[in-house]
Amino acid sequence: MPAMNAFYAQSGGVTAVINASACGVIETARKHKNKIANVYAGRNGIIGALTEDLIDTNRESAATIAALRYMPGGAFGSARYKLKGIEENRAEYERLIEVFKAHNIGYFFYNGGNDSMDTAHKVSLISKKLGFPVAAIGIPKTVDNDLPVTDTCPGFGSVAKYVAVSTREAAMDVASMAETSTKVFIMEVMGRHAGWIAAAGGLAGENPEDAPHIILFPEVPFQQKAFLARVKYCVEHYGYCVIVVSEGAQYADGRFLAEAGTRDAFGHAQLGGVAPVVAQMVRDNLGYKYHYAIADYLQRSARHIASAVDVKQAYAVGKEAVRLALAGKTAVMPVIKRVSDKPYRWKIESAKLSRIANKEKMLPKSYIRKDGFGITAAGRRYLEPLIKGEDYPPYFKGLPKYAKLKGVSVKQKLKQKFVV
Amino acid sequence: MPAMNAFYAQSGGVTAVINASACGVIETARKHKNKIANVYAGRNGIIGALTEDLIDTNRESAATIAALRYMPGGAFGSARYKLKGIEENRAEYERLIEVFKAHNIGYFFYNGGNDSMDTAHKVSLISKKLGFPVAAIGIPKTVDNDLPVTDTCPGFGSVAKYVAVSTREAAMDVASMAETSTKVFIMEVMGRHAGWIAAAGGLAGENPEDAPHIILFPEVPFQQKAFLARVKYCVEHYGYCVIVVSEGAQYADGRFLAEAGTRDAFGHAQLGGVAPVVAQMVRDNLGYKYHYAIADYLQRSARHIASAVDVKQAYAVGKEAVRLALAGKTAVMPVIKRVSDKPYRWKIESAKLSRIANKEKMLPKSYIRKDGFGITAAGRRYLEPLIKGEDYPPYFKGLPKYAKLKGVSVKQKLKQKFVV
Repeated sequence: MPAMNAFYAQSGGVTAVINASACGVIETARKHKNKIANVYAGRNGIIGALTEDLIDTNRESAATIAALRYMPGGAFGSARYKLKGIEENRAEYERLIEVFKAHNIGYFFYNGGNDSMDTAHKVSLISKKLGFPVAAIGIPKTVDNDLPVTDTCPGFGSVAKYVAVSTREAAMDVASMAETSTKVFIMEVMGRHAGWIAAAGGLAGENPEDAPHIILFPEVPFQQKAFLARVKYCVEHYGYCVIVVSEGAQYADGRFLAEAGTRDAFGHAQLGGVAPVVAQMVRDNLGYKYHYAIADYLQRSARHIASAVDVKQAYAVGKEAVRLALAGKTAVMPVIKRVSDKPYRWKIESAKLSRIANKEKMLPKSYIRKDGFGITAAGRRYLEPLIKGEDYPPYFKGLPKYAKLKGVSVKQKLKQKFVV
Repeated sequence: MPAMNAFYAQSGGVTAVINASACGVIETARKHKNKIANVYAGRNGIIGALTEDLIDTNRESAATIAALRYMPGGAFGSARYKLKGIEENRAEYERLIEVFKAHNIGYFFYNGGNDSMDTAHKVSLISKKLGFPVAAIGIPKTVDNDLPVTDTCPGFGSVAKYVAVSTREAAMDVASMAETSTKVFIMEVMGRHAGWIAAAGGLAGENPEDAPHIILFPEVPFQQKAFLARVKYCVEHYGYCVIVVSEGAQYADGRFLAEAGTRDAFGHAQLGGVAPVVAQMVRDNLGYKYHYAIADYLQRSARHIASAVDVKQAYAVGKEAVRLALAGKTAVMPVIKRVSDKPYRWKIESAKLSRIANKEKMLPKSYIRKDGFGITAAGRRYLEPLIKGEDYPPYFKGLPKYAKLKGVSVKQKLKQKFVV
């Protein structure tokens, strides 16, 4: 078979290590020029495929591609764009295949979460149906850690490390101020639907007196009375109280704490975070001085404190995706299989996209402490290896040094424009 | 002169490197056991002196003291506690001297900001007056960078590095999402009175298209129209807009943006940050999707990304404080003198506390761009060296490894208790 081209796209919210997966794909593809002539990256993800806006990665030097390993964000642009079902929106799938045909693309690598795995699955099916079969391989990525089958999702380990490190550091700050000033510190973290990231905050401390003293999981219905009692206990016994709260923390009836009726001067529902809501609850009921941080994008872009394990796994799934494609596989995704906890050992296997698409892996109940405010030993055993090791980017003038991509567009071949 | 003891206390908001100063003090004092028998640290700062709650640092191993260099927070506890004027509150000063006498303390090292330098100055004066002269030496510390005479304040370089690195990383995230999702990212940083920290965010980018595209300084009266026009321009020309906003950003009449009338469900003034206010302004007027982060304590406790220059300077001022005390000086503070920008060279000198106490060094106008939204080349020249170099803490199981102090109390000698 003569060499074909590959298409690679980043999808959904980016992570500190999604570019490490891109690096794994492109470096591996370059070793098989006889089979993969070029990797075209979608500019802004799948949008780039639909609009025929492809980035010619052959124009990037080996050094630039190697530097992707250290670069946060999505180097080629990502997209929050979900292709609908084939029946509802056949035109988009047909357009994809048209673009693939025009550019001799025989491999489709889609780097994303649940939705993206669904798309990759559909691309595999429809390309066959339309007589231009493309090897569609999913590459796992999500800070939410909610893809099934795989032991963990690249991107999660680094956000977990960021949250654990930041919680430990901020806790030391609060501990030293508590006698005369701030007694309660609240750290808001991501995780709308599952408490994986909040759970990672639990790694910051090992003993009851260590921070975080309270984790508020989306999985545990929030009970104000029990929460306030626990805050009071911590301040009275440990001198201070550190709280990690998931943005998805909610009441038993499913209302988010973040939507607890706060309004701006015009009466608009306040689109604030959950941290200020929890803070005011503490102030109004207990009167403690508080501070809060909202990590937001900082937590998922903090490549400077990425987990070495996470970076390695992100690269490995990219590399394996290419290997699977070259082995003639389609509709599969590399998964991380945990071999042992201590010492932590893992290997890469693969799973069918049909087993992964549109399924969410929730935080197991067994990882949440009985009182609902912390993680168990089982949770710690699972999480701990994922934040291991540091993988610092190179620095220049005090700042991480990131390569700039040329981002040269591939010449368009189709006459018809496509509007997304 | 027979050996006396020293007293060391941390004061005010802590920094990522205040313990490096403590390390400098204690390691240097240990080299002069013939003159300084022991360093007693105030538990919770000056409160520990008033209540005779002193930590015996001789009970800490050399390894633990060395580890202070890497530890964020205030290892001995800090205090937000300002001694009043001598005439208003003579009792506190007299109590201090009593405690010093009882514990044979001839050296007073006070590690803090403006207020603390004032206190150190007063201790020097009153101890002489009361016939028990103590060498009172200030040690500069503040993330606010507002102490006069010294070129910079230990603690600032690390928060500056944190803000610059985080802004750069988050900007790469936003840039990759902007096509289909978040277009505006707002990063709220500390600095109630001066824009030093916000200015440091400017280091993240060097060209007009680089983030941050807008810095909102407390020094520049906020004008909504100009601000929104600039946001629009950035989104239209660069695809996205990253804003660094100081918590002290304010209108021409002195009202803080953070107090712009937001109320909670009960009608209480909302104690939120400035970031959500700016975010809603963007949403209401331009309709762009936004995200915001509030770094809060994370920025000043982020020892994991401390500036190597800052750590060195923090240690150096601690060391020099002891040298000054042993040379018979009092009412002075070590200051950092910049010798050259490129290459960056500095040395330690000293200045009288009377020149420093209660004076604030403001961000020079010449560091703020004419349009008020960025830093000038002069600002960059000043700031850039301060974030240079990385000084990573040791890690264990994926987390920074911090020593635990024994914190053994010195036996109390005074019969009378003192209530603060």
